[in-house]
Amino acid sequence: MPDTFVPASRKTLAACYLRTRARTERLCAPLESEDYQIQSAAECSPPKWHLAHTSWFFETFVLMAHAPHYSPFHPLYGFLFNSYYDAVGDRWPRQARGLLSRPTVADVYSYRRAVDERVLALIDSADEKTLSATAHLIDLGLNHEEQHQELLLTDLKHAFGHNPLRPRYAPPNEGTLPDGSPGAWEHWSSGIREFGHDGAGFAFDNEGPRHRAVVSAFVIASRLVTNNEYRQFVDDGGYTRPEFWLSDGWAARRLGGWSAPLYWHRDGSGWLEFTLRGMRPLAPDVPVCHVSYYEADAFARWAGARLPTEYEWENAAGLRAVDGNFLDSELLHPAGGPAYYGDAWVWTASPYVAYPGYRPVTGALGEYNGKFMCNQMVLRGGSCATPAGHIRRTYRNFFPPDARWQFSGLRLAKDAPV
Amino acid sequence: MPDTFVPASRKTLAACYLRTRARTERLCAPLESEDYQIQSAAECSPPKWHLAHTSWFFETFVLMAHAPHYSPFHPLYGFLFNSYYDAVGDRWPRQARGLLSRPTVADVYSYRRAVDERVLALIDSADEKTLSATAHLIDLGLNHEEQHQELLLTDLKHAFGHNPLRPRYAPPNEGTLPDGSPGAWEHWSSGIREFGHDGAGFAFDNEGPRHRAVVSAFVIASRLVTNNEYRQFVDDGGYTRPEFWLSDGWAARRLGGWSAPLYWHRDGSGWLEFTLRGMRPLAPDVPVCHVSYYEADAFARWAGARLPTEYEWENAAGLRAVDGNFLDSELLHPAGGPAYYGDAWVWTASPYVAYPGYRPVTGALGEYNGKFMCNQMVLRGGSCATPAGHIRRTYRNFFPPDARWQFSGLRLAKDAPV
Amino acid sequence: MPDTFVPASRKTLAACYLRTRARTERLCAPLESEDYQIQSAAECSPPKWHLAHTSWFFETFVLMAHAPHYSPFHPLYGFLFNSYYDAVGDRWPRQARGLLSRPTVADVYSYRRAVDERVLALIDSADEKTLSATAHLIDLGLNHEEQHQELLLTDLKHAFGHNPLRPRYAPPNEGTLPDGSPGAWEHWSSGIREFGHDGAGFAFDNEGPRHRAVVSAFVIASRLVTNNEYRQFVDDGGYTRPEFWLSDGWAARRLGGWSAPLYWHRDGSGWLEFTLRGMRPLAPDVPVCHVSYYEADAFARWAGARLPTEYEWENAAGLRAVDGNFLDSELLHPAGGPAYYGDAWVWTASPYVAYPGYRPVTGALGEYNGKFMCNQMVLRGGSCATPAGHIRRTYRNFFPPDARWQFSGLRLAKDAPV
Amino acid sequence: MPDTFVPASRKTLAACYLRTRARTERLCAPLESEDYQIQSAAECSPPKWHLAHTSWFFETFVLMAHAPHYSPFHPLYGFLFNSYYDAVGDRWPRQARGLLSRPTVADVYSYRRAVDERVLALIDSADEKTLSATAHLIDLGLNHEEQHQELLLTDLKHAFGHNPLRPRYAPPNEGTLPDGSPGAWEHWSSGIREFGHDGAGFAFDNEGPRHRAVVSAFVIASRLVTNNEYRQFVDDGGYTRPEFWLSDGWAARRLGGWSAPLYWHRDGSGWLEFTLRGMRPLAPDVPVCHVSYYEADAFARWAGARLPTEYEWENAAGLRAVDGNFLDSELLHPAGGPAYYGDAWVWTASPYVAYPGYRPVTGALGEYNGKFMCNQMVLRGGSCATPAGHIRRTYRNFFPPDARWQFSGLRLAKDAPV
Repeated sequence: MPDTFVPASRKTLAACYLRTRARTERLCAPLESEDYQIQSAAECSPPKWHLAHTSWFFETFVLMAHAPHYSPFHPLYGFLFNSYYDAVGDRWPRQARGLLSRPTVADVYSYRRAVDERVLALIDSADEKTLSATAHLIDLGLNHEEQHQELLLTDLKHAFGHNPLRPRYAPPNEGTLPDGSPGAWEHWSSGIREFGHDGAGFAFDNEGPRHRAVVSAFVIASRLVTNNEYRQFVDDGGYTRPEFWLSDGWAARRLGGWSAPLYWHRDGSGWLEFTLRGMRPLAPDVPVCHVSYYEADAFARWAGARLPTEYEWENAAGLRAVDGNFLDSELLHPAGGPAYYGDAWVWTASPYVAYPGYRPVTGALGEYNGKFMCNQMVLRGGSCATPAGHIRRTYRNFFPPDARWQFSGLRLAKDAPV
Repeated sequence: MPDTFVPASRKTLAACYLRTRARTERLCAPLESEDYQIQSAAECSPPKWHLAHTSWFFETFVLMAHAPHYSPFHPLYGFLFNSYYDAVGDRWPRQARGLLSRPTVADVYSYRRAVDERVLALIDSADEKTLSATAHLIDLGLNHEEQHQELLLTDLKHAFGHNPLRPRYAPPNEGTLPDGSPGAWEHWSSGIREFGHDGAGFAFDNEGPRHRAVVSAFVIASRLVTNNEYRQFVDDGGYTRPEFWLSDGWAARRLGGWSAPLYWHRDGSGWLEFTLRGMRPLAPDVPVCHVSYYEADAFARWAGARLPTEYEWENAAGLRAVDGNFLDSELLHPAGGPAYYGDAWVWTASPYVAYPGYRPVTGALGEYNGKFMCNQMVLRGGSCATPAGHIRRTYRNFFPPDARWQFSGLRLAKDAPV
Repeated sequence: MPDTFVPASRKTLAACYLRTRARTERLCAPLESEDYQIQSAAECSPPKWHLAHTSWFFETFVLMAHAPHYSPFHPLYGFLFNSYYDAVGDRWPRQARGLLSRPTVADVYSYRRAVDERVLALIDSADEKTLSATAHLIDLGLNHEEQHQELLLTDLKHAFGHNPLRPRYAPPNEGTLPDGSPGAWEHWSSGIREFGHDGAGFAFDNEGPRHRAVVSAFVIASRLVTNNEYRQFVDDGGYTRPEFWLSDGWAARRLGGWSAPLYWHRDGSGWLEFTLRGMRPLAPDVPVCHVSYYEADAFARWAGARLPTEYEWENAAGLRAVDGNFLDSELLHPAGGPAYYGDAWVWTASPYVAYPGYRPVTGALGEYNGKFMCNQMVLRGGSCATPAGHIRRTYRNFFPPDARWQFSGLRLAKDAPV
Repeated sequence: MPDTFVPASRKTLAACYLRTRARTERLCAPLESEDYQIQSAAECSPPKWHLAHTSWFFETFVLMAHAPHYSPFHPLYGFLFNSYYDAVGDRWPRQARGLLSRPTVADVYSYRRAVDERVLALIDSADEKTLSATAHLIDLGLNHEEQHQELLLTDLKHAFGHNPLRPRYAPPNEGTLPDGSPGAWEHWSSGIREFGHDGAGFAFDNEGPRHRAVVSAFVIASRLVTNNEYRQFVDDGGYTRPEFWLSDGWAARRLGGWSAPLYWHRDGSGWLEFTLRGMRPLAPDVPVCHVSYYEADAFARWAGARLPTEYEWENAAGLRAVDGNFLDSELLHPAGGPAYYGDAWVWTASPYVAYPGYRPVTGALGEYNGKFMCNQMVLRGGSCATPAGHIRRTYRNFFPPDARWQFSGLRLAKDAPV
């Protein structure tokens, strides 16, 4: 949707809508009906919930607000499928999403159908004023659904990765793996530059307003840190040496019993890695992923470097094409290569806070981003589970520093030598 | 099985086996495939797990031990479906049983089929010595499966009762409800009497050995405590007056936020009760159920009475027929009436301990009962979810004193007036 | 008080009062003022709290009820020093007793002085009717204070035993240690016998009423299990073999990280034991103590025996003198020897429940014992921290099965060989 | 110390040392020996611990490193009084600091004496090279001790404020309270300015390096938010309206049961506030304190404003004198008035992260600041419990966003109107 969206055309809007909604369901094609129920950690959600919640978003913010005489599909779905919008009312507890066998998967697909019909009818028949008011909301809803496409995959990977049977989401991939590229340091001079979204095309409110900031001279790695490099950190006792770790990170490591990235397993023959295509020997030259901010930060300190700030990352992104290994490649795992985007989200050294002059939108949708601006770190660049059209240079993803179940990796930076 | 079991007949044994195994599956007939996955509390298990675990029991204790050249159906099922037998090996954590979407429901039914085939083949073809050795184990496995039939229903009721959609397991029942019977006190004299199983027919090891005990003169109510009586306790502030409660009970009440039995709900029109046949107005004259030992004990103290000991209960059971409202009635809820058994398990004042001279069997099956003889209370008499043939006068059920999700109610007793 | 109490004599009553109250304070003589504040676990209380609470007991149940025109010493002390009497009002949370630096130790001693003065004045000046009413309450208060003398020592031992400086409560003891006595099995025939207190002299309500019970033939060890014997269990992998343990015990072991009795430490030279007289090498032939019920039960199963029931213990106690190593010896640790009482409390296999016909007294004092009759096990016989006059053949102590900080040990029993 | 320190003079260094060390002890003068033991929350420490830990700092980083033939005062004090320096070795768990009655208060004062003697001897006798090496460490140790002076008071206030007796640290203050000043908005233009410490005089490593940053035009309040203003937020339902709160803040509010600032109490006559000088009616026109970042942020949103960034705060501080109500006033509570510093720390909107080019020092002292640069927010300006010489324009204090026990308040800011 993002790349082709022209709000003036009803036809384009409807096509975008259908394309994004269909992709969500296509992602569920390999699932058994049992897989739709599982919530394997409080921060994960069952696939069924993602299917329903994304529909609730359209129902609540588009249909309830703008469709004439719309009455909710089910009186309790608002309660069950609201994620966190306090202004919309109470909601079912997040950590209990996996405890609901009803509505069934079939019920949820019926819900999707019913919402789709009404949204398409609204696009088709709304007067120009209503269309103009809803087009942006539909666009927001589609970007929202793309976010849940990525979460659906990472949550499912969590469920499968914690099942002793290690089910596969997709068959093993026959593709060749990259050779180890040595990488290089790119140098950037200091300066006062502009950052953030400039207002053309869709962006989330947290990407703006565009503003100036000072950047000191820095160097940044030409590629992401690889499994092989990360394994050297592990082998060097990285997980047992507090000198590399933030204080909270050291506590998280102990609490979680971390001794390697999530999904790494050691058996007699060496390291294995669980992927959406099943367990496989750890591929040395692909980017490491499923590390927390704490691990990324500790690795960087061990390596004599640091994580880039989000300004440095955005600066280095410059005018490069937004290319890379995204969801659309269907590789479903980092693959390595020269692209600046994709493969794995890059943890930055920047806490997630408002840009200068930031104002959330009014009403319930104002809760979309602003209220999470505390205790989280910014990630940039997209991953192998991000829809290609979803990512931008100014896109700010954010997760708590102990989160490991996303495709999160790292790219090293340093102060420029004087 | 228990009432008709004649170990000498292969045909009878096979028929018993098939009958009990089929009933488990028949209990699952109303389930959607989603319902099989849900574990709504750590002490509950998903239906799928019950189906698999009862099969694992036969596989482990019958087929692995006695079937020639038997190799396990799946190398990991032993790990996944062992409940608590330490001697058999490691196991998947109990509280995580709901996190496994695989094996699927279909996989589990295949597992049941495979086990059934081999057990029936063993019954058919074993030599006499093996048959004699396995018949008792099969009998134990069937009694074990009957226990899980009851748990399957109470666990499912928990899942449905905590789902805001309040799904029904079965349609509402059109039957008439009982009139309020005033009940009466039955008097029993003191004496030295015999208790426990005498060895004829199947019994669990914890029901014996038969032994003498002193019983003081006592009176016991002719029927169970009703919803109406229990509501008076609630209305009288029973849940806010510590003088009626055990110290641990008062703490459990506060921790759990208890203000009425589990599944009671109050709305504008009065009290409702969630049943396996859906939500309905509280029926005043049916036995109260889903109360913990702590609540039963507090009610009794409020009523100027006490709970009977298990000896008193067994004494009063005497030679009465083992009749009542069991699973076979398909009412799926207490109904009231004169029968001494059924409707709701009776919490007794007796902690669950070994009878004098008790010896658990050797080997892994010795873990069946003995290792739970601490911190639990004995319940007697069976419930509306207990298979009719499963219960006996000497049957000792046991649960922790804070357990509420079973069909557990109470029958009052008192010391005989002097 | 217990041994000489004659309620008819004001002089004796006053002397008993003074003697018991003085002993509590004498037990505190070795303390630094800092030691009075420490609560090293939720189930322990600071010495200062014991000093105040025992005074509150007299203030509340004797002075407030019977002393003319008595007004409380301090308006908040009732709130601060009530232990668990719900009928008396709210109270400061148990686990937060160590967070109160005020009232100071000096304040608490002033409180004791003030209460003592008024109690003695009441004894001296009350009319006969009041005296008769209060004498029993004073007697109860003194028995209550004796219980807290033991708790004061075990709580203090916990605080010192968890301080890396390992402070000593008393200097090392120069006494000789016992030689290992092989012990023997005493045989008792089956029978119907009487148990419980017969009403002569002081007893707690939970010791009665006297009643008959059946005892099967049994054998019981002539002495307590020793450190040496327990160490063999440890060396034999007792703490890593689930087959010896109750299910709840195995969970408690894992949760607590138990691998030996509380206060056992291993260093390069072997096992050490922390005592109130400091750390010392483990004495092989003294009774083991500071084991939980779960450990005692597991040891017994390992040893091919079991724990005695409380009836068996009381039966075997018979008419033996109530002699042994009590607090009065000032050894402050088990010493071994032929006495049936003292050294270490004996865990019995009996859950703590009401005797047949038990009725708690009315009013707040009814909360003394009855409301704890759930989830605890009976211990018998007294310990090296029990005042000599406090113990009786019928005395029922009780603690949860995971409690380890009392001087709790074990004496083996078995069914009599047929 | 900071304002007068001239490292070249042994005499001055010794005088500074003595003055700061003496002030810590003077702060303890009102304490009863019992008060030294109390740790009323995991994030607080007992006064005794502060006394010992500040001495351990000198012992470890000055004496062990530089005093000839120094051997530790006690072999276990390093274990007991290390706060968080992993490079120095293991340590006693933070949350258990209140469980140690030994060493006694007298022992700890002996420890202080012994450390003082050796430090003074070192200052007196060290050769010039050693003196030069140690002078900075002594300076750091004194600044460290000043931080603990403030913590000692806030921790003690926590202990006293949670004791139902509400003890006073100091007698009530007879001073007059300020009239309500309406306050005003100060306007600052946008610009690229320099921030951070420039290297003259003592500063912590986290205050540098000095660097440029862009500041947009903003307005900032001329005084701190007052109790009266904050009470309007409370009265307006501020604690029950999620629209004002960060998501994590709303969760913290619920978890902590917050309905007003820490130490506010409501009784029949209105709001009271617990202070180090006892309970008193809430003074309307003094700055509010003991609010968390979450509360400060919610208040600001309710007020149509926001919190300043640390750059905005530092910008507005400009060249103003570092004057205000500090510890030296002995008011022990915010008093209001025109000063820019003091009274209450100002929560800023800035997460605590490294400045561009930041490098922690090598060795154990590198753990002083850098490893806490995650999940904390910067506070600026000092409080009524901060020693006057301790604060600077560039001083960065930091606490987690849910911390309430410090003297933390807020000063509003806004984007400049366009």
